[in-house]
Amino acid sequence: MTQTPDTPKDATPEGATPVDAPPAPPRKSHGRLTISASLQPRDLMAPQRVKGAWCARIITLFPEAFPGVLGLSLTGKALAMGLWSLDTIDLRPFGEGKHRNVDDTPAGGGAGMVLRADVVARALTQAGQGAPADRARWPVVFLSPRGRPFSQETARRWAAADGVTLLCGRFEGVDQRVIDAYGIEEVSLGDFVMTGGEIAAQAMIDATVRLIPGVLGNHASTEEESFSGTLLEHPQYTRPPVWEGREIPPVLLSGNHAEIAKWRQSEAERLTAERRPDLWARHLAGKG
Amino acid sequence: MTQTPDTPKDATPEGATPVDAPPAPPRKSHGRLTISASLQPRDLMAPQRVKGAWCARIITLFPEAFPGVLGLSLTGKALAMGLWSLDTIDLRPFGEGKHRNVDDTPAGGGAGMVLRADVVARALTQAGQGAPADRARWPVVFLSPRGRPFSQETARRWAAADGVTLLCGRFEGVDQRVIDAYGIEEVSLGDFVMTGGEIAAQAMIDATVRLIPGVLGNHASTEEESFSGTLLEHPQYTRPPVWEGREIPPVLLSGNHAEIAKWRQSEAERLTAERRPDLWARHLAGKG
Repeated sequence: MTQTPDTPKDATPEGATPVDAPPAPPRKSHGRLTISASLQPRDLMAPQRVKGAWCARIITLFPEAFPGVLGLSLTGKALAMGLWSLDTIDLRPFGEGKHRNVDDTPAGGGAGMVLRADVVARALTQAGQGAPADRARWPVVFLSPRGRPFSQETARRWAAADGVTLLCGRFEGVDQRVIDAYGIEEVSLGDFVMTGGEIAAQAMIDATVRLIPGVLGNHASTEEESFSGTLLEHPQYTRPPVWEGREIPPVLLSGNHAEIAKWRQSEAERLTAERRPDLWARHLAGKG
Repeated sequence: MTQTPDTPKDATPEGATPVDAPPAPPRKSHGRLTISASLQPRDLMAPQRVKGAWCARIITLFPEAFPGVLGLSLTGKALAMGLWSLDTIDLRPFGEGKHRNVDDTPAGGGAGMVLRADVVARALTQAGQGAPADRARWPVVFLSPRGRPFSQETARRWAAADGVTLLCGRFEGVDQRVIDAYGIEEVSLGDFVMTGGEIAAQAMIDATVRLIPGVLGNHASTEEESFSGTLLEHPQYTRPPVWEGREIPPVLLSGNHAEIAKWRQSEAERLTAERRPDLWARHLAGKG
């Protein structure tokens, strides 16, 4: 019988759960964590990268939303290959009373509902099992328009960690005390309001997972893309050379690599100046 | 027999499709478009808001990614109620040759693949059926990190339109000629790179759909939230009044509405200055 020591799923020590917590629900795991008996040595059975593979843990009222789009295409293939893993933790069973209420009205009045500190804390305790307590090695994040904006820099930082726990909000937000007590960082997908954090979580995981070695394979280089540098990417063209009377810019078909590079740089600068004065100012400052 | 004249699904006039296009594939619709015979007058059968309900059309290589999270919770209920509708258009059948190739290598060299102008144009022709040609009434969007950033303002603009067509990219991008020829606006979810546009499309649709009248119901007010104004939202608290030795700020339990409003405003200002110097500068400029 082979056992995977890095699988905390069924290892729930009594001491780790607060006294008033309901029994921990089973976690649904989308990574490759199969266990099977065999005469072959374990090292040859399971790729070593599964052990300690980057892991996303999602606390959500909608566990059925995952893996969603993350289960398709490159991220889905990488998930099936065990290059990363995904655990969803249903918030509902941690709720209060017969109806497992997770939220209550805001102190001081106002619209909407606020996720309770005690309920969220119990889910976070469950999510913390087997994860390092050091927030640099395993960030714990609340997805909120109040947070600092998610960026390529955030994705790089998370990809370099062992994993990340994402708390998806619905309603007005979460009690500030649990944010303070658990060292939760608030991160925003952008300057807009969504009905919940689940799509934001998928967006951030997608951007992070594609930076994990082996995930992109030969499909793309992360080097040349927008936000690897400070400029937007130049326009792209492909066959046919003439489409509805429109030609590919002749320089791109010239075979002159120096001229092509020059054209692309100048187009990238033009687009950035036009569309993103903020990035353009940063680019000019970085040069000066 | 009752007919819905605003359902363009099966109305594919020959003239609208380019001569070299493969037969148009059936569109998968997630809105309520049931037709049934009855003795009751039609007006009482189907809510009038289904006619002309806001519509999102998604051109994608992964139609199975939709509705995804959009099919759950408030957006899912609103979709089932016919307050908005969702059509996915599979890009693959519009591809070239036996293998229905949709992409080719970039002119001038480089990593990745570029979506072909002719292939995308055929899908856009299909997506344009029954939609107004005026881009203000029906924006046509390519999701790309090169685009202008999506914001609450973009969501408001789209929600006020009749619908929106979103082209989801994979690979390096799309041939610039089809962007130019079809008046496509490029919109970015944020300053980070994703494996594809599908999650970005869901994020933008979520932010847009919640602004459609009736979608939020009594669940929340859009008025008080972050980015309705220029400040981040103040911290929230709820029961219990004391949790693990941490108290709710006494002012919130005082019942003094003027003091509560003052505290919330000052906290919103503190957080915005701390986390979002860009928004804070805009806020101060707006005041001055």
